[in-house]
Amino acid sequence: AEYMGSRVLTAMMNVSSLLVLCVGAVLPTLAIKYTYEIKYLDVPVDHFSFTSNATFRLRYLQNATHWRKHKAQPIFFYTGNEGDIEMFAQNTGFVWEIAPEFGALVVFAEHRYYGQSLPFGNRSYTDPKYLGYLTSQQALADYVLLISHLQSEQDRPSPVIAFGGSYGGMLAAYLRMKYPHMVAGAIAASAPIFQFSGLTPCEAFYRIVTSAYNSASIECAASIRKSWAEINNIISSDAGKLWLSTNWKLCKPLKTTDDVKDLKSWLIDAYTNLAMINYPYPSNFLVPVPAKPISVMCTHLPNSSLTGKTLLKSLFKAITVYFNYTGSTKCLDVGTEASTNLGDLGWEFQACTEMVMPMCSDGHNDMFEVLIWNFAEYSDECYKKWKVRPDEYRALRMYGGKDISTATNIVFSNGLQDPWSSGGVLYNLSSSTVAIIIPEGAHHLDLRASNPADPISVRTARKVHRKFIRLWLQNYKPPERMSGRGL
Amino acid sequence: AEYMGSRVLTAMMNVSSLLVLCVGAVLPTLAIKYTYEIKYLDVPVDHFSFTSNATFRLRYLQNATHWRKHKAQPIFFYTGNEGDIEMFAQNTGFVWEIAPEFGALVVFAEHRYYGQSLPFGNRSYTDPKYLGYLTSQQALADYVLLISHLQSEQDRPSPVIAFGGSYGGMLAAYLRMKYPHMVAGAIAASAPIFQFSGLTPCEAFYRIVTSAYNSASIECAASIRKSWAEINNIISSDAGKLWLSTNWKLCKPLKTTDDVKDLKSWLIDAYTNLAMINYPYPSNFLVPVPAKPISVMCTHLPNSSLTGKTLLKSLFKAITVYFNYTGSTKCLDVGTEASTNLGDLGWEFQACTEMVMPMCSDGHNDMFEVLIWNFAEYSDECYKKWKVRPDEYRALRMYGGKDISTATNIVFSNGLQDPWSSGGVLYNLSSSTVAIIIPEGAHHLDLRASNPADPISVRTARKVHRKFIRLWLQNYKPPERMSGRGL
Repeated sequence: AEYMGSRVLTAMMNVSSLLVLCVGAVLPTLAIKYTYEIKYLDVPVDHFSFTSNATFRLRYLQNATHWRKHKAQPIFFYTGNEGDIEMFAQNTGFVWEIAPEFGALVVFAEHRYYGQSLPFGNRSYTDPKYLGYLTSQQALADYVLLISHLQSEQDRPSPVIAFGGSYGGMLAAYLRMKYPHMVAGAIAASAPIFQFSGLTPCEAFYRIVTSAYNSASIECAASIRKSWAEINNIISSDAGKLWLSTNWKLCKPLKTTDDVKDLKSWLIDAYTNLAMINYPYPSNFLVPVPAKPISVMCTHLPNSSLTGKTLLKSLFKAITVYFNYTGSTKCLDVGTEASTNLGDLGWEFQACTEMVMPMCSDGHNDMFEVLIWNFAEYSDECYKKWKVRPDEYRALRMYGGKDISTATNIVFSNGLQDPWSSGGVLYNLSSSTVAIIIPEGAHHLDLRASNPADPISVRTARKVHRKFIRLWLQNYKPPERMSGRGL
Repeated sequence: AEYMGSRVLTAMMNVSSLLVLCVGAVLPTLAIKYTYEIKYLDVPVDHFSFTSNATFRLRYLQNATHWRKHKAQPIFFYTGNEGDIEMFAQNTGFVWEIAPEFGALVVFAEHRYYGQSLPFGNRSYTDPKYLGYLTSQQALADYVLLISHLQSEQDRPSPVIAFGGSYGGMLAAYLRMKYPHMVAGAIAASAPIFQFSGLTPCEAFYRIVTSAYNSASIECAASIRKSWAEINNIISSDAGKLWLSTNWKLCKPLKTTDDVKDLKSWLIDAYTNLAMINYPYPSNFLVPVPAKPISVMCTHLPNSSLTGKTLLKSLFKAITVYFNYTGSTKCLDVGTEASTNLGDLGWEFQACTEMVMPMCSDGHNDMFEVLIWNFAEYSDECYKKWKVRPDEYRALRMYGGKDISTATNIVFSNGLQDPWSSGGVLYNLSSSTVAIIIPEGAHHLDLRASNPADPISVRTARKVHRKFIRLWLQNYKPPERMSGRGL
């Protein structure tokens, strides 16, 4: 039972695990491709009460190269998600590439409690009394205030287009849904707004992970499905544990049940992350991987009839593509993904409060072991770790679940190779709230910089984005005010 | 300057001053016409953070006589405003009258910090750390939770229609705008959502008060306009103060500048309140008054050429219609409106935080003394009294001001005799968000029980309300969920 809960938490953390290697005071692996000013705005710790005047510095990145403020040219506003905003800025090339064409101001806003935007500094994560202001509603209110600030010196306020990927895409969509007067439209890429309780079967996520492997090779997915029993078999003896530790070059030899649990969690995350970053060109978003990393990995698993140590040796070669493509990693550290960097911790807390996204697997329709979703146990684990309990239906009450027919001016894009498409909007909600499917796409591929290897579907998606942005800007009406004075 | 700020606060309090005589532990003047169960729901003190688990009991009134829960018949949900909810229940006959025809559950939800719904009991009003959770956003979240609760035992959740008058009408409209998945539509009567900074000229409110008097008699309004100078003249000597105190039967003789200030504030509020309750039949909403009380009052002011004590004597007869129509009041207590009952205090706090509604008068286009709107002074007075400062544009950021073209399924009704129509929605925003004008109507006349003296315009308005409610219910789609389980 504990394993289950923890594994579920880990599954939840997949969005944030994208950040694992990048988040921190310095960003050693971050190639600086786009440049910006780093700015700050004082925002209230709590936007929804008047109990205190406490504020903190919200960080944002700004590039005004192409913008003429007094011409009310648009503002492209990235609604930051769970991690250091500079990492998102560098991995959202689409916004940078289209900014000149629209004469847009480019702004990337950091999400509170991530990166350097810590409301209570080092204490921010120490207690719910500090951490409890980490909610999507507060983050949206931060963005509303920042947008007002950006428009405050304008006689005629600029229209704003919101952009976001993954949780950031959810925020971009929610910003338009909750504050339509603040943003003219939103590009919400790979935004799993339907991943909440009661909306999507819990097994969908891992089924799509599996599908990404089946697409590369049916033998590959079958080999992985089979491997769990072989792992269970070999770790049943101490000699087997030693064999696996040695042959898989584990940094820490397998000894306890927890060690085995960590190894399996690491594997699940590795398979999931590879599906998310299964881009058609080499990338270094999460870790350095080759183009189409799943296909490369699956070249090592061509035959699902292998068994025992032979299978496990092949599997190790396969996962090496994920954790050691450059060849510079000395040993496999399965504790890495449980690292205590802020990005992960923050998302864990959000998953333990409002972002309750049930996940499970059945071992038949997916390539994983059986995992049952048990909310009560999940809640208990949250309480043990964070002293909070998740509010299972809060996100539905706040954001409407699938009942969002009144939403306007949102493009939801989803790559079908991306596991998070399980909770994505895959059909048009109206003529102005539309879905774009990118069959070959992984996690928010369309927000990344263009690349010669991009499939036609993602090139088309980006054209559709631009078409809608242009339409929204054409239809934009400046605020009705007695004076042009800002908010 | 102090006078100005305070008078503005008083002007702000007109919405709440409706409650002055009714709010409290007992409701002595409240005729019990409609019956209901009194129920409670535990709701979080703070819906927007996870810093604590604190909850409090939110009171609501419920009548299920005509409702069949398992047939998913509609819920008529009154979004309580600043006062004891029983008073609103008794003064919102329209909802009660149409409930049988729709087979509706009738619910009146009390607004936090009013009536008996005090989050911190007796401490609730003692300090911003307790009082600071008095915001419209928190109140809306209370209502969302209560609606979820009402639907929680239903396989197919009932559609909800929100109703509200005045600030309650604002909340009904905001509930639909912010949580369209929770309510199928909203009847927002006399809801001044455009009364905020930058949206409406500050002089509009008192101009409409004046217009209500001009409609009754131009001589009447002219007499009142003239009276301020006569008051200033007579109170310039001690003998004059004594004369006025005696002839106007003041409970507390005029002595200080503050006494004079209180008297003038009382007069302004009396004229304003009379315009709000200028109903075509005798009523006892605020105070017992005859049918068309302004006309009755104005019979005492037929000649604006009167001057000095003669004018002041006539004016006293006129205002007697307001403060002593029954003849049972022994003296005129100008401190009454500054009473410390919770309804007033709560609204004062809201006006000093998010509900910043600028008001002013010029003495030419209205019948009042010159009053300049000065936000800085207003803010200072708020800080002095409440230790909070108003956030001038917060309501615009939160609710969009006039930029609400995406709103759907709201009827905004306004009586043109009602001063609050200055900030009302007087034009259709779309085919589903419409405005109804009731030329002869005072403050949310349409929400009151039908009466033989009702003008045709208000009868028509109620028909339009019913037509839209029927349409919204026809178009209602139950939530898309994997099971019928509630929120």
